[in-house]
Order: sequence, then structure tokens, then C-alpha cells
Amino acid sequence: MRRSAPLLRPLALFCLLACSLFTGAGALKAQPAAAAPAATPSMPEVLAASTPSDWRQPDLENVLYLDMPGGRVVIELAPEFTPNHVANIKLLAREHYFDGLSFIRSQDNYVVQWGDPTEKKTIQTAKKSLLVEFTRPAEGLAFTRLPDGDIYAPEVGFSNGLPVARDAAKGLAWLTHCYGMVGVGRGNELDSGNGAEIYVVIGHSPRHLDRNVTLVGRVLQGMDLLSVLPRGKGNLGFYEDPAQYVPIHSIRVAADVPPAQRTLLEVLRTDTKTFETLVQSRRFRREAWFQEPVGHIELCNVPLPVRALPTPSVAAAPAVN
Amino acid sequence: MRRSAPLLRPLALFCLLACSLFTGAGALKAQPAAAAPAATPSMPEVLAASTPSDWRQPDLENVLYLDMPGGRVVIELAPEFTPNHVANIKLLAREHYFDGLSFIRSQDNYVVQWGDPTEKKTIQTAKKSLLVEFTRPAEGLAFTRLPDGDIYAPEVGFSNGLPVARDAAKGLAWLTHCYGMVGVGRGNELDSGNGAEIYVVIGHSPRHLDRNVTLVGRVLQGMDLLSVLPRGKGNLGFYEDPAQYVPIHSIRVAADVPPAQRTLLEVLRTDTKTFETLVQSRRFRREAWFQEPVGHIELCNVPLPVRALPTPSVAAAPAVN
Repeated sequence: MRRSAPLLRPLALFCLLACSLFTGAGALKAQPAAAAPAATPSMPEVLAASTPSDWRQPDLENVLYLDMPGGRVVIELAPEFTPNHVANIKLLAREHYFDGLSFIRSQDNYVVQWGDPTEKKTIQTAKKSLLVEFTRPAEGLAFTRLPDGDIYAPEVGFSNGLPVARDAAKGLAWLTHCYGMVGVGRGNELDSGNGAEIYVVIGHSPRHLDRNVTLVGRVLQGMDLLSVLPRGKGNLGFYEDPAQYVPIHSIRVAADVPPAQRTLLEVLRTDTKTFETLVQSRRFRREAWFQEPVGHIELCNVPLPVRALPTPSVAAAPAVN
Repeated sequence: MRRSAPLLRPLALFCLLACSLFTGAGALKAQPAAAAPAATPSMPEVLAASTPSDWRQPDLENVLYLDMPGGRVVIELAPEFTPNHVANIKLLAREHYFDGLSFIRSQDNYVVQWGDPTEKKTIQTAKKSLLVEFTRPAEGLAFTRLPDGDIYAPEVGFSNGLPVARDAAKGLAWLTHCYGMVGVGRGNELDSGNGAEIYVVIGHSPRHLDRNVTLVGRVLQGMDLLSVLPRGKGNLGFYEDPAQYVPIHSIRVAADVPPAQRTLLEVLRTDTKTFETLVQSRRFRREAWFQEPVGHIELCNVPLPVRALPTPSVAAAPAVN
């Protein structure tokens, strides 16, 4: 204990996983873990050994900057999954619909959500109604399978840096509600959401929402601003007192922001040998602190490293546990 | 969208799950969900139909009150899993060791942790060193199995209101790192923790810590105070500036607190038909908002309702999503 002996040593914390992925379906049943590979590098080692081609820079046309008290939240949108919602959210951003709105909800172990507390702001150019985009065809989608299995879906894995699920029998794929994922609030009707009201997952992944809400992307940076918003005392975590609303200064499409004001990030690609090594390193924790190497990993516990540019040396991952 | 159409309608949010539990092992593989039972009650319906015997009042000898700015955190200890650590933590509380200490760490999507920032406070009556208690014999442990499967353990389920895992082949059981679970920090050495430094899970369940740290119980009330502690900017989320420390006024064994100052809670038993019904209700969401009933549930997404006494009518569950 004590400061010198925390829950996890620094080295342990920044270690993810390495080597080669499981391919045995037996991992699904969480049977005793296979023996750890002889030499599993640590996460810092994996990242240090990565090459520039292991990383990608998100398309600034699909990145949002949410500026709020305390700093900036950077969101990467996923038009390959939910093109209509992504297009509409960009229209909303470009007509400055979001500027001056507020976080109106913070529900513990669940979501924070922003919107128009006055319910009076008019939408100019964007659509006021959109049909949900719960799934997309699996065909044509890059998919790096995570063979450890899943409780909620037949298959899970990663696509372009996002946690996804797939149902081969139905030929469908969808984004999953891991920590930091961003989705579009809706009412009971399937066309009642349009991207004007958006939530971010701040708790244990509510995977039961998969295919029930349209997810549009994930937070690349700034989760530490969202996850600490005081919890609302109202039903569903809504703030009862307008004095509790947390303002949104602006939401901008990154491509529209002057270069000097951009927050440039790189994301570790998930279709690379380096990522495969990273996952394995996280499955078999080699650090001295660990007694039980575990041998499995669950989808939402796989870190998806992000690093700032132009400082390419050290990775800063929002979920590096 | 809008306040009138949030992510989840109020009714949906307070619904958990109902009817009878799966018994088919096929659920492990997250195959297509079985058809939903004809009439799955909602969570409010399940709780409204519960009887007094479905609830238990925690033994005040095994309840801690952590008083901090903003209110009280109530923790139930689990001596049936980690008797030595529980006994030592109670000794520490009773010698007032914790009073005046601080939260010194808040790491996003992971844990908050308290301890002695000065590292100078002396321990009077409690042990300074304790061997880890990672597992206990499965024999003799009440165990309500969750048949949906698990990525990390051969079997998972519930024991006396706590999420647990079991390995029948090894004859072992252990507590699992779900949201709100409470554990004891340690260094690399297996006898380097003693309960003086404690963490609480505030993010997506870090199940890779199972059997690597000694868990001692769970937060019954007050997670909304812990989960919003500003994230530390230092390594592992430690606060770099002592001005950021969040003080702990006191930690008391509830039995030692005058009756008028107690926070009395009831916990839904997990060995009852009502709980079984609740889980099923959560597996098959019947509310109008849901399009995809899911059909499965993951251990750490199962709500463990807690309600205040003496107001027995409405349940307040920390994880009711």
C-alpha cells in the first residue's frame, strides 16, 4: 500500500498485451487459459516497437471538437457504420446548433448526455428526424476478430479502431457500447433521434443497448472531462436545477477549425500485427505485479491507444488499465 | 431526443429483469437469444412484487460508513471471502486510522483510491502486513449461477449479493471486479497490502484484476460521490498537487455509530426467485423503447438493488441501467 505501492505499479498499468492472437474457439468458454507464450512483451514495449504505419490519423472531416469548461473532448465519428447520423451531426455542428447547449444528464455508471435544455432551439439545415442505423452489412467491413468470445454477440472484434460485433448468419455488423462510445438519444419511435441529443458511455459497458441505439463514434480524448460531471439527482440522471447544467461552448468539425487550434491525434490501427500483439500482451500480463495472467480479455477491456501529434513517442490511451 | 425523449425512458431505466433463469449452457456462446418468455415483468414490477424476505439487512458489524465532502459512502464488507482483510480494515477503522486521510488517486475508467498521502500515519492495533486473500474454497459458499457465461472465469454468479466467480475443477471461488467493488491496494509482494489503502472500481469492470487483488466488499450507496472525483493528472491517476486531495472525514464501522446517525439499507437477496426473475427481466427487455431484447446478460451488468430503510417502497439501485 501507500503511494509507493499502489494498486498497480506504473509499469503494470501501461502494459497492454502482445504476441499473437488466440485462434481457438475454446477461449469462448473461459476454460483454463492456455499457457502464456514464452515472451509476451509489455504494452509500452509493444507501442515502442510500433512503426508509423501502425497508426492512422483520423480524417478531420469525421472528427468533432467539443469545447467545454476544462478543455476539449475529441470525438471520432464512424460514417462507415452510421452515415446518415454522422452527416446530420456534422450539419448540426456546422450550423452551430450545439454551441451554447448544455450537458443536461449525468447518470452514474451509465451515460452523460447533452442537448437543448430549453427545447426551443431551431434546427436550420440538418434533418429533424432520422431513421435509426442500428446495424450495417457485415460484407465489406474490415473486421479483426477477438476470439475470446462475448456474452452479447456471436462474434466481436475491431473495425478501424472501434469495438464491433458481427452476426455472420444474419450478415450484420454493429458498433458496441464500450466505455467512451458516443450515441444518439431517441424516443420510442425509430425515427425520433437525429443527433441533436447525444450521449457518451461513462460506466460499465451497457451492452444491452447494442442494436437499440445508433452509435456514431467514440471519444478519443477528454473522457476525463465527461466522466466526472456531477450526477444528476433527477430521474435518469437528468439535472433538476438548470444551475447544474454544464455548458458546451461549441462543437466543431475539426476540418473547419484553423490548423493552429486543432488537436491532432493518432489512433493505433486495429488491423495490424502490432495490435494483435497488444491484445495478447493484455491477455497475458507479464508484469511482476500480476499473479494470475488471466489468459482472456473481454471486448471492452481491450485498450485502443491514442497518441498526440506531433509527439509520437509515448502513447496516451484513454482506457489503459 | 430532447428532455422528453431521452436515451431511455424512465420506465425503461428502472426495469431490470424477470421470470426464470436460463439453464442452457448454450447461452455461453451468445448464440441467437431464445425467444423471450411470454410475459416478462419489468424491474419495477419485480421489485414491487418482492416480499420482505427477498431483502436482507446487512450486518452492521460488516458495514462501513465513509463520510466525505458531499455525503456518505456505505460499504458492505465480505468476511466470507476475505476474513483477514475485513478484520484488519475494521481494526483500522476502530483505531481511527482512516480519519483525516484522503483520496489520493482517481484514474479514469478504472479506480479511485484512498490512503495516507503523508505516508507517516502509524498503525496502532491493526496488522501492518497481511497475506493476500485472492480466493476461497468453493465448498460451503452459497452460489446462484448466472448461466450466460463469462469471458474470464469458468462460472460466474452471485453470493449473498456479491458478483463472484467459481472454478469447480479447482474448488475455488472469488469476488469479481465489477463496478463499485472495493479492494485492497498492494505492491508486488503478496503480503504488501493490509487494508490501509483501498480502491473502488469506477469504470468498465477491470476483470483482469480478479485473483490479483484482494476484494473486500462493495459500495452499497454513494458511488456517485466517488465516481466524479476529478481525475488525477499524475501517473496512474495520482493527484500531483496535494491541494487536489479529497479528504475523508471518517470511516466508521456502522455498528459503532449511534443509531440516529446510521444509514440503514436493505439489499435484494440473490438466492431468491425474485432475483432470478429480476435477472430474466433484464435479459429480455420488454419496455417499448427496446427493439432488440438482447436475451443475454453479463455478470457486471446485473443490477444488485439496494433500498433505503425505513422507506421500503421504491428501490434505489446503484447500477440500474
